[in-house]
Amino acid sequence: MPATNWIITAQCPSQLGTVDAVTGYLYHNQHYIEELHSFDDTHSQRFFIRARFRTAEGFDEEKFRLQFALRAEKFDMQWEMTLDQHKPKVLILVSKFDHCLNDLLYKYRIGQLNMEIPAIVSNHPDLKSLADWYGIPYHHLPVSAETKAEQEAQLWQLIQETSSELVVLARYMQVLSPELCKKLQGWAINIHHSLLPGFKGAKPYHQAYEKGVKTVGATAHYINDDLDEGPIIAQGIEAVDHTYYPEDLIAKGRDIERVTLSRAVKYHIEKRIFLNGNRTVVFSD
Amino acid sequence: MPATNWIITAQCPSQLGTVDAVTGYLYHNQHYIEELHSFDDTHSQRFFIRARFRTAEGFDEEKFRLQFALRAEKFDMQWEMTLDQHKPKVLILVSKFDHCLNDLLYKYRIGQLNMEIPAIVSNHPDLKSLADWYGIPYHHLPVSAETKAEQEAQLWQLIQETSSELVVLARYMQVLSPELCKKLQGWAINIHHSLLPGFKGAKPYHQAYEKGVKTVGATAHYINDDLDEGPIIAQGIEAVDHTYYPEDLIAKGRDIERVTLSRAVKYHIEKRIFLNGNRTVVFSD
Amino acid sequence: MPATNWIITAQCPSQLGTVDAVTGYLYHNQHYIEELHSFDDTHSQRFFIRARFRTAEGFDEEKFRLQFALRAEKFDMQWEMTLDQHKPKVLILVSKFDHCLNDLLYKYRIGQLNMEIPAIVSNHPDLKSLADWYGIPYHHLPVSAETKAEQEAQLWQLIQETSSELVVLARYMQVLSPELCKKLQGWAINIHHSLLPGFKGAKPYHQAYEKGVKTVGATAHYINDDLDEGPIIAQGIEAVDHTYYPEDLIAKGRDIERVTLSRAVKYHIEKRIFLNGNRTVVFSD
Amino acid sequence: MPATNWIITAQCPSQLGTVDAVTGYLYHNQHYIEELHSFDDTHSQRFFIRARFRTAEGFDEEKFRLQFALRAEKFDMQWEMTLDQHKPKVLILVSKFDHCLNDLLYKYRIGQLNMEIPAIVSNHPDLKSLADWYGIPYHHLPVSAETKAEQEAQLWQLIQETSSELVVLARYMQVLSPELCKKLQGWAINIHHSLLPGFKGAKPYHQAYEKGVKTVGATAHYINDDLDEGPIIAQGIEAVDHTYYPEDLIAKGRDIERVTLSRAVKYHIEKRIFLNGNRTVVFSD
Repeated sequence: MPATNWIITAQCPSQLGTVDAVTGYLYHNQHYIEELHSFDDTHSQRFFIRARFRTAEGFDEEKFRLQFALRAEKFDMQWEMTLDQHKPKVLILVSKFDHCLNDLLYKYRIGQLNMEIPAIVSNHPDLKSLADWYGIPYHHLPVSAETKAEQEAQLWQLIQETSSELVVLARYMQVLSPELCKKLQGWAINIHHSLLPGFKGAKPYHQAYEKGVKTVGATAHYINDDLDEGPIIAQGIEAVDHTYYPEDLIAKGRDIERVTLSRAVKYHIEKRIFLNGNRTVVFSD
Repeated sequence: MPATNWIITAQCPSQLGTVDAVTGYLYHNQHYIEELHSFDDTHSQRFFIRARFRTAEGFDEEKFRLQFALRAEKFDMQWEMTLDQHKPKVLILVSKFDHCLNDLLYKYRIGQLNMEIPAIVSNHPDLKSLADWYGIPYHHLPVSAETKAEQEAQLWQLIQETSSELVVLARYMQVLSPELCKKLQGWAINIHHSLLPGFKGAKPYHQAYEKGVKTVGATAHYINDDLDEGPIIAQGIEAVDHTYYPEDLIAKGRDIERVTLSRAVKYHIEKRIFLNGNRTVVFSD
Repeated sequence: MPATNWIITAQCPSQLGTVDAVTGYLYHNQHYIEELHSFDDTHSQRFFIRARFRTAEGFDEEKFRLQFALRAEKFDMQWEMTLDQHKPKVLILVSKFDHCLNDLLYKYRIGQLNMEIPAIVSNHPDLKSLADWYGIPYHHLPVSAETKAEQEAQLWQLIQETSSELVVLARYMQVLSPELCKKLQGWAINIHHSLLPGFKGAKPYHQAYEKGVKTVGATAHYINDDLDEGPIIAQGIEAVDHTYYPEDLIAKGRDIERVTLSRAVKYHIEKRIFLNGNRTVVFSD
Repeated sequence: MPATNWIITAQCPSQLGTVDAVTGYLYHNQHYIEELHSFDDTHSQRFFIRARFRTAEGFDEEKFRLQFALRAEKFDMQWEMTLDQHKPKVLILVSKFDHCLNDLLYKYRIGQLNMEIPAIVSNHPDLKSLADWYGIPYHHLPVSAETKAEQEAQLWQLIQETSSELVVLARYMQVLSPELCKKLQGWAINIHHSLLPGFKGAKPYHQAYEKGVKTVGATAHYINDDLDEGPIIAQGIEAVDHTYYPEDLIAKGRDIERVTLSRAVKYHIEKRIFLNGNRTVVFSD
């Protein structure tokens, strides 16, 4: 069996030996560490580590997992191990705005985002032809106050049927129910068009205009059951001035939003993000 | 009389002829326009203009003002005219942090900020030796809940005695009374250590840490009677990550704060800022 | 005839009255100035102005042009006047990389770039399906050392047949002949994948890697007969570190290139750019 | 003996076990890793690691060094170990411009740069009073073509007498001789006022102006015997436009230069920089 590259990530309470738990194990099994990040958060007293390694000859995944699990248990580690080349299945939610979708699809097509897209779901039919061009199934799931529960049930079924590993809200203009948010906690990324926690809620660019700010930004964050309050992954920003009316801020924001969302999705796919309470640790490249 | 350079600024309700009111007047009196900015705000329906001009031979300031006033009146213009080389008197308020003060003094010394500093006022004695080195009078006006009114009276007297044209709160850690704020409206600049309106109030870097933001910033704004809500002049920002504890954000923030405050002071001195409701128009260079 | 919005731009040698030549004329004909920029370059002794105005009742374009021409002549002004809503015809040149093309087409589709695209020309067939989806004619004009002159003749003919007003080299990997460059001077924009004048020539990201730079960028410039030396319009930049191999710089560069090129095209379309020797004056918004 | 914090850094050819050589050793001696960075450069085939650790009870520095040296030898490691609180002696070279000096001194005073400054050396007397205020010995070593060798001898003697561990050229306007450059290789940082390798040599802001660039920057780099070609540590950048004359670029540049130089000095002091051929690896925070 030829050498393969894997990513192992872990987090646990801070204590002596956490680094060695991973690096020593890899070394003693002759696996070669190509990239390594660790962080010991002295506030939350938690430890985070991510290593990319090339397997030694005779690598046996099952044996690796079994043996490492024993070691991890001593440290109360939560850990994951993934083939570096693994393309996770990413389901994308959109409404009518397509600047983020267009960017994700483009980066998917040229391989800058190493993923599969089993489905695009929208509460509107508008973006079907874009999905068609990329050869991706487009599901139109319209929603109203009355049908919300039912629509979310369909959505959830689709997420399960497609074995999606990540859900991306690429300017999906519906508020998900707390129940669905909870199910998706830690594996659904939203792009909010403001520098959270500033300008929560609706029409953030209009709020920003009213306040006369000289910078606008966007925030990619994991969703949780508290709207616009989920753990922040990435933020982008640009300077503006008095000549920007709300519609100009919106236009400026498009470039910020898509770059910020793509960055967050990339980090997630590459297993660079760890939840740390309501904050994140991101081993960016 | 040799040619001199002047800056004329004006604002008025939008209507036909506002540009010509200024440019036509300058032209017909043979004054040479070296720099010109104008902006017509379609939301507030107000017009803003700033011109730097070189006077024609035989320039008579009084006559210029009298004649222009007639013209301005027709447009309901608020206007000001200042010698380009005029060094306004800027009174600086500090407490114990001196990163902003140090920067202002440095830029004052090398002429990057074209101003005079008749006084530095502090509620603490700590920064006296810095003021001494620059040869600037340092006034220690301690303050407590009981003496606040009295201390502000002393401060106000000093502002008047020194004929100060601008007051800069360079990390002055006292909240000014609504009365004093009102008097200083439009000619007192504060630096807030967050990207307002996010993280208003005390300890913004600690608030930012708790929220797990990936960017921190600072905001220079005119003070008004609503704390941390005055019109924004300039904002600076830097990216941060999970390795920044509150004390690291504070350190990072120092460079942002001083650069942002200096920028705002420069704009004010150069007559580049206009109040437009609770927003500003800034003709930055 | 209802009111229309026009953009007038002009440049001429610096002298008294240049501003009034435009603003006075507009005012006396009762046209309303909505936006105004001017700049007097004391080094090159040239004056630049751009005004957007709303026409008065009874506006007669021909009469306006005739009368203004007389005035402009006195100042030796080069000037242009365009309907604000005019969509210029923009011909796009590409090879195989499509990140810039994809961005231009997207912004064209949502109206963020106010233009028509009569033709996409490539020396490769690869990007035809993308053009097809947007419904834009795709011309495959292959080129070799032997056929270069002929291919450029075809290209030139196409530019003329389509009445193209701007040519955009969106990562077109062929060097245009000096003759064609000369013909296109001032109305052809190229994106170079480095911060010119650093890293001219081929493989700039590899050059940047070798030098160990900590920032990479891209430059949008008008082409002229001196390769990679044409007047710079816009530059974009991002920080990088030691973990970026050449292929990572290239990936990072894609986002910089497309944003920078789009910005330059937008400025050109909106008549914001003036040639000033081998430099540009850009009245950015 | 109470626990102390140390920083250990190492580099060696890439091979299996390099990470464990450090992390395993620390773990088996019960030292607690607080921060860890490593990087395996697949191009140069070299490995770099930096760890900050808290010592176990009974820590014996000499024993640690002896034992680790044996381990390091097997990997052909170059390594260093320093007390985290160690304040290196930093000698600063200046001429007449003091914006960088002022910033370094300020950050030294408030503890943002954890260093001692045993001497400030200048070829001009101008900045003595600034040094005096900070209580730092100021050495005026004038230089001319004839006295250059002698002056550099004096400078070198001073560097040795003060046991300086780092030399910072804070806008020192003299070209050091190749001999001195060689002696200082890897422990002397210069700030160049351009984005190297663009605009090497004299008057970079004037060069930048001539080229009409839309961004200016500064580069902090280690000096070596090839002028302006030493390994780059950090680069700063700002956008500019046509309104910036050379003197404006210079003024803009001051803020970029001082921030960039301070950053590089901080990285050096904190042992975050590794030489990797003519490039650097920087484990920035």
